[in-house]
Amino acid sequence: MQFQLSDELIEKIEYLIEQKNDEELLLHLEDIHHADIAEILTELELDEATYIIKLLDSDKTSEALMELEEGVRERILDNLSPKEIAEELENMDTDDAADIIAELSEERQQEVISQIIDEEHADNIVELLRYDENSAGGLMAKELVKVNENWSVTNCMSEMRAQAENVTRVHSIYVVDDRNKLKGRLSLKDLLTARSNAHIRDVYIPQVDYVNVHTPGDEVARVMQKYDLEAIPVVDEMGRLVGRVTIDDIVDFIREEAEKDYQMAAGISEGVEADDSIMKHTRARLPWLVLALLGGFISVTVLGTFEDAMEKYGALFFFVPLIAAMAGNVGVQSSAIVLQGLANNTLRGSLMKRLIKEVGLSLLNGVVLAIMLALGGTFLLGFDYIYGVTVGISLVSVIVIASLIGTFVPIILDRQGIDPAMATGPFITTSNDIFGILIYFSIAKAILGF
Amino acid sequence: MQFQLSDELIEKIEYLIEQKNDEELLLHLEDIHHADIAEILTELELDEATYIIKLLDSDKTSEALMELEEGVRERILDNLSPKEIAEELENMDTDDAADIIAELSEERQQEVISQIIDEEHADNIVELLRYDENSAGGLMAKELVKVNENWSVTNCMSEMRAQAENVTRVHSIYVVDDRNKLKGRLSLKDLLTARSNAHIRDVYIPQVDYVNVHTPGDEVARVMQKYDLEAIPVVDEMGRLVGRVTIDDIVDFIREEAEKDYQMAAGISEGVEADDSIMKHTRARLPWLVLALLGGFISVTVLGTFEDAMEKYGALFFFVPLIAAMAGNVGVQSSAIVLQGLANNTLRGSLMKRLIKEVGLSLLNGVVLAIMLALGGTFLLGFDYIYGVTVGISLVSVIVIASLIGTFVPIILDRQGIDPAMATGPFITTSNDIFGILIYFSIAKAILGF
Repeated sequence: MQFQLSDELIEKIEYLIEQKNDEELLLHLEDIHHADIAEILTELELDEATYIIKLLDSDKTSEALMELEEGVRERILDNLSPKEIAEELENMDTDDAADIIAELSEERQQEVISQIIDEEHADNIVELLRYDENSAGGLMAKELVKVNENWSVTNCMSEMRAQAENVTRVHSIYVVDDRNKLKGRLSLKDLLTARSNAHIRDVYIPQVDYVNVHTPGDEVARVMQKYDLEAIPVVDEMGRLVGRVTIDDIVDFIREEAEKDYQMAAGISEGVEADDSIMKHTRARLPWLVLALLGGFISVTVLGTFEDAMEKYGALFFFVPLIAAMAGNVGVQSSAIVLQGLANNTLRGSLMKRLIKEVGLSLLNGVVLAIMLALGGTFLLGFDYIYGVTVGISLVSVIVIASLIGTFVPIILDRQGIDPAMATGPFITTSNDIFGILIYFSIAKAILGF
Repeated sequence: MQFQLSDELIEKIEYLIEQKNDEELLLHLEDIHHADIAEILTELELDEATYIIKLLDSDKTSEALMELEEGVRERILDNLSPKEIAEELENMDTDDAADIIAELSEERQQEVISQIIDEEHADNIVELLRYDENSAGGLMAKELVKVNENWSVTNCMSEMRAQAENVTRVHSIYVVDDRNKLKGRLSLKDLLTARSNAHIRDVYIPQVDYVNVHTPGDEVARVMQKYDLEAIPVVDEMGRLVGRVTIDDIVDFIREEAEKDYQMAAGISEGVEADDSIMKHTRARLPWLVLALLGGFISVTVLGTFEDAMEKYGALFFFVPLIAAMAGNVGVQSSAIVLQGLANNTLRGSLMKRLIKEVGLSLLNGVVLAIMLALGGTFLLGFDYIYGVTVGISLVSVIVIASLIGTFVPIILDRQGIDPAMATGPFITTSNDIFGILIYFSIAKAILGF
C-alpha cells in the first residue's frame, strides 16, 4: 500500500511530459497522494514540475505545493503567474495560503491577493499575514466549526454540515455567544449522543483550553502536548474566537524546532539542509568557525605563555589536545542536559543543590578518568610517573570546571532572557579549550615548578 | 485560564494532607486537569503523593500517573498494592496500561494483571505487552471505532455510539469485513452527510493508510507526518485490524527521539534528565568520556612522534589545540547535516556529487579561515611568517578531511545498517582530533623539514 518512489516512475513521467501525453499523465497521477506528488515534483526538472502543477487539478497541486521544501516551491512559484498562484491558494486552508504568500516578494503578494476570487478567503489570508509566524496567530487557520450557544442540536447539525464542507478535520466544535466570544466546546461524541431537541447551552462543556493570537509557538506546542490536544482555539485580545491551531502544524513546528536546536548545538546558525547551496551552507557554518578560530588564537597565546616549560617538560605539550578534548566533551554533556531541562521546564530545585550535584558528578567521573589517565600515561605510554600524576590531577580540575561552565552558562543566559542554546556547541567547546589549557599548565607549573 | 503551579498551592495541599481533610482536598483538586495534578504530585513528598492517588477517583489519577516522569511514577507505584494499581489500569487506555505494566517487575506484572476485573481489558493489555515498545504494536491502543461493511448507516450510528463510549477520541471510523480484515475508513464528516438508509459498503473510502504491528516507530511517525494523519490503523500479519496509533503518542515519540538524538550528539548514551541520580548520569556519560580518553592516548602518541620538531619549531605545538578544535567543529557541522538528511530521508543524489559538493564547501570555508589564521598568526600573534603559512596550509587540509569524515562516516554506517547517530559528538571530535594533528605535523614536516 505504501507508495515507493522509483526511477522507473520518474522516467515514465518525464517521457509522458516530453510527449505532452496529458491523458496518460493524469491516469498515472490521479491515485497518488499529494505528499507523494510532492516527492515526484522534487525529482523532476523545474520545467517538468511546472508542467505537472499546471496540468493537475489545483485541489491536488495546492496540497502538494505545501509539502515541498521551501527552495523547490519557490522556484516553481516563480514560474507561475499571479493568477495561477491565486488559483492554488483558493484551494488551500488559510494558514497554508498565508505561509506561501509570505514567501513571495511584497509586490508579488499584492498581485496574487488581488487575483483571489473568494473575497472572504482573501480577507482571512491578509489577516493571518499580520501575525508573527512563530505566534499562535501565525500558526492558526481560520477554518473551524463553531456553533452559537443559543442554537438547538438539530439546528446545529445542519449548520455544521455546511461548515464542515470547508474544514478538513472537524476535531472540536467551538461554542460562541452572539458576540463571537469563545464560551466552550462540544465534542463530536457529545453531539452524537445528545438528544436532538436539546439546546447547545445545555450540553456544551464550558472548560476549554485556548491561546491568544500573540502566544508564542513553543508555548502553544507545550500546552497542546501537555493536555494532549489535537486542536486549540485562538482568541483575540477581546476573547473573540478568531481561529484554531491544529496538531499537524504543531508536529511540524516541534520537528523544526528540534532540528534547529540540534543544528545550533553543532554550530550551524541558520536552518540548512544537506541539499542547500554552498553559499547558504557557508553563511550558516562559517560564522561559528570564525568564532572558534578567534578562540583558537587565545589558546595559542595561552600556550605561548608557558613556553618556558618546553625545554624541561616538553612532554606536557603532548597532553594538551587530550585535556582540551576532555574539557570540551564534559562541557557539551553538561550543557545538553541543562538545555533540555530548561526547554522541558523540568529543571527544579535551587542553584546551590544543582551546584553540589554537578560537582559531585564531575568529581566522580573525573577521578575515575584521572586514575585511568595517570596509569595509562605512566605504564602504557611510558612517561615518567610525575607526568602521570600531573596530568591526572589537572584532568580532575579541568573536568569539574568544564562541567560547571557547561551547566551554569546556559542557566545564566536563560535568566538574562538570552536563548541558552547559544551556549552549546562551538561556544562551550572553545571556552572550555581555553580554560582547560590554562588550568592544566597552571597546575603543572605548581607541581613541577618552571 | 492557564493553570499556574504555585508554592502556596503546594503548601495548602500539604497542610490539608497533614490534617487529613479529605473534603477540602477534593474540593481543591476537582477542577484541576490531570496533567496539572501530575505536576502537583511531582512537587509533593512520596507519601503525600501516594495519599492523593489513593484519595482521588482513579479515572483522574490514572491519567495523572501517565503524565508523570518515569522515576516519580515508579516510586509511587511501589507504594501501591497490586489491586490498587489494577484499579488505575482499568481506567487507562490499553496502550497506556501496557506501558505502565511494562515498567513493573515480572512478578508484580502477574499479580497486577490477575487483579484486573475487566477480562477483555486484561487480554488486550497482555497482547500489547508482546510487542516491541518501539514498534507500531507497542505504540498502538486497542481502543478504536470500527464498523462492518455490511451494516447500514443507521445500524452503524447506534453501534458507534456504544463503541465511542470507550474511546477518548474517535478520529476515523475503520471499516472491516466479516473476518475483521481492514477494508477502508469512514470519516465522521462523511457519516454526518450520508443518507441514513445507505450501506457502509456504498459510502466508505477504500483507500486507507495503515501499518503493520511490526513497523518500527520512526517509520510510523514518518508516515503519519507525511500524510498528516491523526490516527493510523494497525493490522496483523493476516491484514486483520488489531489497533490504532494516535498522533498524541507520536508527538511524544518524536520529542523523545529528538531528545535522544540531541543527547547522542552530546555524548550521552542513555536517556537522562537533569534530576536523575548521579549514578544514572555516570552510566550515561562516563562510557563516552572513556572512549574520548582512549582517543586522547592516541593523540598523545601521535604528538610524541613529532618530538624532534620541538627544539627547532616549538611554536608549532602552540597551534595544536586550534587545529584540533577546528577539525572537531567542522566534523560536527558536517555530520549534523548528514544525520538530519538521513533521518528525514532528504539525502538525494549520488555519493560522488555529495563528495564534490563537500570538498567545494570545505575548500571555500577552509581558505577563508586559513587566510585569517595565517594573517592573524603572523601579524596579530607575531609568529614568523613561515609558521603562518604552515598552519594556514594545514588548516585547509584539515578542514577538508574533517568535513569528509563528518559527511561520509554517518553515510557508511547507515548503509551498513548501524545507527549513524553513533558517529556524532565525541566519536567525530576524537577521531578528527587525531587526524587533524597527524595532518598538521605531516604538512609542517614537509614544509619546514625536521
